[in-house]
Amino acid sequence: MAKNTLVPFERLAEQFERLPGIGYRSARRIAYYILSLPEGEAEKLSGAIVEAREKIHHCPVCYNLTDMEKCGICSDPDRDRSVICVVESFRDVSVIEAMDEFSGLYHVLDGVISPMKGVLPDNLRIKELMDRLRDGTVKEVVMATNATIEGETTASYISKLIKPLGIRVTRLATGIPAGGNIEYSDEITLARAFNLRLDM
Amino acid sequence: MAKNTLVPFERLAEQFERLPGIGYRSARRIAYYILSLPEGEAEKLSGAIVEAREKIHHCPVCYNLTDMEKCGICSDPDRDRSVICVVESFRDVSVIEAMDEFSGLYHVLDGVISPMKGVLPDNLRIKELMDRLRDGTVKEVVMATNATIEGETTASYISKLIKPLGIRVTRLATGIPAGGNIEYSDEITLARAFNLRLDM
Repeated sequence: MAKNTLVPFERLAEQFERLPGIGYRSARRIAYYILSLPEGEAEKLSGAIVEAREKIHHCPVCYNLTDMEKCGICSDPDRDRSVICVVESFRDVSVIEAMDEFSGLYHVLDGVISPMKGVLPDNLRIKELMDRLRDGTVKEVVMATNATIEGETTASYISKLIKPLGIRVTRLATGIPAGGNIEYSDEITLARAFNLRLDM
Repeated sequence: MAKNTLVPFERLAEQFERLPGIGYRSARRIAYYILSLPEGEAEKLSGAIVEAREKIHHCPVCYNLTDMEKCGICSDPDRDRSVICVVESFRDVSVIEAMDEFSGLYHVLDGVISPMKGVLPDNLRIKELMDRLRDGTVKEVVMATNATIEGETTASYISKLIKPLGIRVTRLATGIPAGGNIEYSDEITLARAFNLRLDM
């Protein structure tokens, strides 16, 4: 697809090209599509961007996204306040909520410790997590960071801070995924599945 | 990926889902990305949408897109005013311009005749094309509609209107594309390539 010489067109296409999963050609296809939309339709998209940015902010308790003062989970009286599930990102909250198995609260770290990328413990919301544990309500913290090296490092770093408080710290099980094939499992997953093998 | 219960989030994701090539999951990934952008960055995207929609309009002569009074091609004194290339869409103009072989003017029909989809000759800019041919400047009209049934029908419909004016009407050649493989050519392309075979 050729570069269009129209400046506002290229500026629009370049903005779309910056979004995840959208390349040069798709960005231009979308830009053309936007120009061909009936009156008012493109404005719905630009309006939704502005609205989402204005209304959505972090919950001051758990740092999940919300458009209310506190997020729906933190303000729900039926949630179990004795368990906090620690996740890397607000995206993980929706995934765990969709599972419909966990009834506790969350704490969004907003990243993982990664000295290579310049992310140190102080850049994450670890201090805020520790503050939430001080009043004795929380009996268990479930570390649900990703099963990556950085995720594991972050989980064990936080775990060491929490244990002296006498609070139970757990970690999501790792192993072969449901429907997973041993032949195609990587070595680390397989080794963990062996080490954590269960009696039948 | 789970449905997020935040209304402004879902509204944003749904707007992205309507764009070409963006599905349910990508739309949500983009919506999360937009919420994580630093201050001012998401506003560049919404601003580019509003700007493109406000500034870009159809050239009143050829119906190509422009942000000036007349488009850059129609107002360029070096273009050959004796040839008009008729295309279905403004997207085709950039593709032909990128080829850098054609120095004439364009006429954007804004579609093809398709009774099935309710597009009749009156819905296209055919009358406007005929008006451009009346003063005798144009000596040739190149039909560059797509090589589809609808594109061919539209080309031959317009050709029949133009020929009585004594203006030459030509059609882009059809055949096996450059680098194309006979084994993988469809029957219609192959039949045309045979019928239009050239002496070597």
